Amino acid sequence: MSAFFTTPSMATGALALLALLATASVHAAPAKPAAQPLPPRPSLADVIKASGPSDWRALDPENTLYMELPTGRVILELAPAFAPATAANIRALVRERYFDGLFIIRSQEGFVVQWGDPDEDNPKPFKAAKTVKAEFTASIKDAGNFTRLKDGDVYAPQVGHANGFPAARDPASGRTWLTHCPAMVGVARDEGADTGNGSQLYVVIGHAPRQLDRNITVVGRVISGMALLSSQPRGTAASGFYDKPEQRMPIKAVRIAADLPEAERSRFEVMRTDSAAYQAAVDAQRNRGGPWTKVAAGKIDLCSAPIPVREQK
Amino acid sequence: MSAFFTTPSMATGALALLALLATASVHAAPAKPAAQPLPPRPSLADVIKASGPSDWRALDPENTLYMELPTGRVILELAPAFAPATAANIRALVRERYFDGLFIIRSQEGFVVQWGDPDEDNPKPFKAAKTVKAEFTASIKDAGNFTRLKDGDVYAPQVGHANGFPAARDPASGRTWLTHCPAMVGVARDEGADTGNGSQLYVVIGHAPRQLDRNITVVGRVISGMALLSSQPRGTAASGFYDKPEQRMPIKAVRIAADLPEAERSRFEVMRTDSAAYQAAVDAQRNRGGPWTKVAAGKIDLCSAPIPVREQK
Repeated sequence: MSAFFTTPSMATGALALLALLATASVHAAPAKPAAQPLPPRPSLADVIKASGPSDWRALDPENTLYMELPTGRVILELAPAFAPATAANIRALVRERYFDGLFIIRSQEGFVVQWGDPDEDNPKPFKAAKTVKAEFTASIKDAGNFTRLKDGDVYAPQVGHANGFPAARDPASGRTWLTHCPAMVGVARDEGADTGNGSQLYVVIGHAPRQLDRNITVVGRVISGMALLSSQPRGTAASGFYDKPEQRMPIKAVRIAADLPEAERSRFEVMRTDSAAYQAAVDAQRNRGGPWTKVAAGKIDLCSAPIPVREQK
Repeated sequence: MSAFFTTPSMATGALALLALLATASVHAAPAKPAAQPLPPRPSLADVIKASGPSDWRALDPENTLYMELPTGRVILELAPAFAPATAANIRALVRERYFDGLFIIRSQEGFVVQWGDPDEDNPKPFKAAKTVKAEFTASIKDAGNFTRLKDGDVYAPQVGHANGFPAARDPASGRTWLTHCPAMVGVARDEGADTGNGSQLYVVIGHAPRQLDRNITVVGRVISGMALLSSQPRGTAASGFYDKPEQRMPIKAVRIAADLPEAERSRFEVMRTDSAAYQAAVDAQRNRGGPWTKVAAGKIDLCSAPIPVREQK
């Protein structure tokens, strides 16, 4: 039974990344050979190892947010190509220190974790815009490069990746939108489409709630620190809100990377989703080989497609 | 901004269930009217409220497991129609008290939580079978009723529900299999297809890892208590295993409901997935109406289809 367990040999950077991407198989170290093993194929770890510097991009410091929690740093990348007005208002909120001292206010099983001001009777004031126009979809022409995933999708005519963000497109309408995959960050809103402003944000922690696509402004993605948010105890009030103040984790500060000295910045890179290496990375997940896998899926769904991230130490 | 927050009026059983199913929208109480509201349609809560006794089934006590954790009871339903030999071996392990005193040993972000014996050098002995034949797929003829979901799927020719479990089918091969949706429980194994035995089980906590379908025996589903597992702190060793004994949550006991006196049993019912009420429940999620939703998805993917569960107090 020892092979059910992990071994030090698995604790490599590549496999740690593989784990981070939650694409590992439900097993640990290999032991007995399989009856009819599939041919060995490059793994995601192999593809990452073989990639070159040009296959990766550094995060833009102006579009990188650090949310400092008592348990560590969560890093978010904003997507101004899809939500320019909302991204700008979030930057304004961060620069007036709006989020400092606020809280994680919601943790709903299989759905989202949300943060902001829990006090509806006496809300913390801010100078940034109170309402921002809905940015639920963007023009295909304006949204930049799109690398289509060939495997199809239940919800949209086309899906793929735009500059490292999972996205969908409808050529008939000429519109494109970011999709609610795990780690994507959206803007909580009231009933009115234009009632969001970025002062309350949520991150997807469970199976992709794609029914939210095109109904809410999606403004970015958590690049690092998902586990700090997703493992929060679930809230016991309706929709997973915390009904007791002591249940809420405080937000020490939120900062824009560009506003911090170099020494205080994290150095993360994202694999370019328009690179050949990325196509190899997706194919490694689509068609797995080796002794553990008995049947390669041959397909991959949008929210299961890895978006490799690495930290430059 | 008050409408960003939950209100006591939301804390109804129906909405609590809605929350449990992680299908709520990212907002709280309604406030301002939407510009162009969609027509009102029955919600999942409405469908559940309108359902009759014949739309629900009680769990079979012989196929219901209670995993007692320090934080509460997790309830699993076994699926003997798909994995009869594995379900029988798990019952044997439970009845010899194998799991009592073992641990949650793995929590991998966005993937699985796993439990069993962490001691590979001196494993806890058991009388049940050490290996059980692979039950990765079953014959369509043997697996019982199947209610097809019409929305399509990226991975399989047909998907739907079999007696309350998400499943896929391939008419060409005559095979069917349970799918790796959130809350589904599988059997950790070594490289050999027949090396699993049920002494180590995992539950899916993130976006459905469908690449595992047909590669591992899926034996059931968590009916209640997912939050007790999914909010466990993530393990820091490779693949999310806990590398420090104090990180592991102990399992007080695992019992079969049939072996407990009535007074100690939980009374859960699952909506019959072959009922008309279930079709209405799925359609309520597929085509949402009302003032918050601006665009109804019109589609639903297999692992987003709700499987309503209710507790008889």
